[in-house]
Amino acid sequence: MAHIELNNDLPDIRGLMAYSPQIAEVLNALAETLLRNDDNTLSRGERELIGTYVSYLNDCFFCQNVHGAMAGHYLNCDIQQIDGIKHDFNSADLSGKMKALLSIAGSVQKGGKYVTEAQIEEAKMNGATDKEIHDTVLIAASFCMFNRYVDGLGTWAPQDREFYVNRAPQRALEGYQSSVYK
Amino acid sequence: MAHIELNNDLPDIRGLMAYSPQIAEVLNALAETLLRNDDNTLSRGERELIGTYVSYLNDCFFCQNVHGAMAGHYLNCDIQQIDGIKHDFNSADLSGKMKALLSIAGSVQKGGKYVTEAQIEEAKMNGATDKEIHDTVLIAASFCMFNRYVDGLGTWAPQDREFYVNRAPQRALEGYQSSVYK
Repeated sequence: MAHIELNNDLPDIRGLMAYSPQIAEVLNALAETLLRNDDNTLSRGERELIGTYVSYLNDCFFCQNVHGAMAGHYLNCDIQQIDGIKHDFNSADLSGKMKALLSIAGSVQKGGKYVTEAQIEEAKMNGATDKEIHDTVLIAASFCMFNRYVDGLGTWAPQDREFYVNRAPQRALEGYQSSVYK
Repeated sequence: MAHIELNNDLPDIRGLMAYSPQIAEVLNALAETLLRNDDNTLSRGERELIGTYVSYLNDCFFCQNVHGAMAGHYLNCDIQQIDGIKHDFNSADLSGKMKALLSIAGSVQKGGKYVTEAQIEEAKMNGATDKEIHDTVLIAASFCMFNRYVDGLGTWAPQDREFYVNRAPQRALEGYQSSVYK
């Protein structure tokens, strides 16, 4: 049960969004802009993977499963492969650029000042653009918010991980801005 | 110097917002909704204080000074008093409710799961409503994002703390949605 009375039976961030629709609209606009905007050289799958990894580091069950399923959907890999990346991205079948960006995301999860010049250089040497580094930092930072929102208010989440995998294709079609109350 | 080329000379989050106006619009809408919306029983000063405290815990010079100056402006107290609250809010001249909410904010800064039932109970016993607890968690969570965005990209910030104090009255008039590029 959530720490506060949400006046609805919806789980996870959906319960919070139904509780506070005005805030939901802004948060969904942020997710839509960061994770789905087409004007981006990071694919939707890569951006979802960054959010998934940060949610894993923050131990947020809901976010790492929702976004892990989305990453799997876009990148055409299964839940075990996504788990493998979360646990050890350096050993995964990913580009040097993605490994460098995930390393930056991991530092952002600890705190902004943990990002080093050496990490930035490594990302650039592997072909990351300034915009890709910018987006990686902000996506990682935003999941530090979303994770805390979901867990800081003690929301519950469906525990069957297949639930998230099964919903991913429909969510990919609908996007985040239409996801209020769903 | 920032970790990436921002193509402008603006400091702190203003440099990032000029670099990425579409994202700036969404982030400013979030700040405006959380910190200034009048449909809230937490005063603007109390909400700025929550953001200031979290920014202090995250050691974000820019955010703790911008929002500390805003809190001081609204609550009619000076920079030393705000510093005193940041360092030891339990000894400060604050209501039991605000102390309980700042305690929750401090836990959110560490991670969502650090918020305890006992902290929620303490806040409710001191008169905090569910909405006030909700907003405290989300304000604290959002500053975990803003702080990481500013510091994760290595932006610079004016070091003279009076700069922020002097700007606060004008910023209070203008709000956050008009602050892009300023």
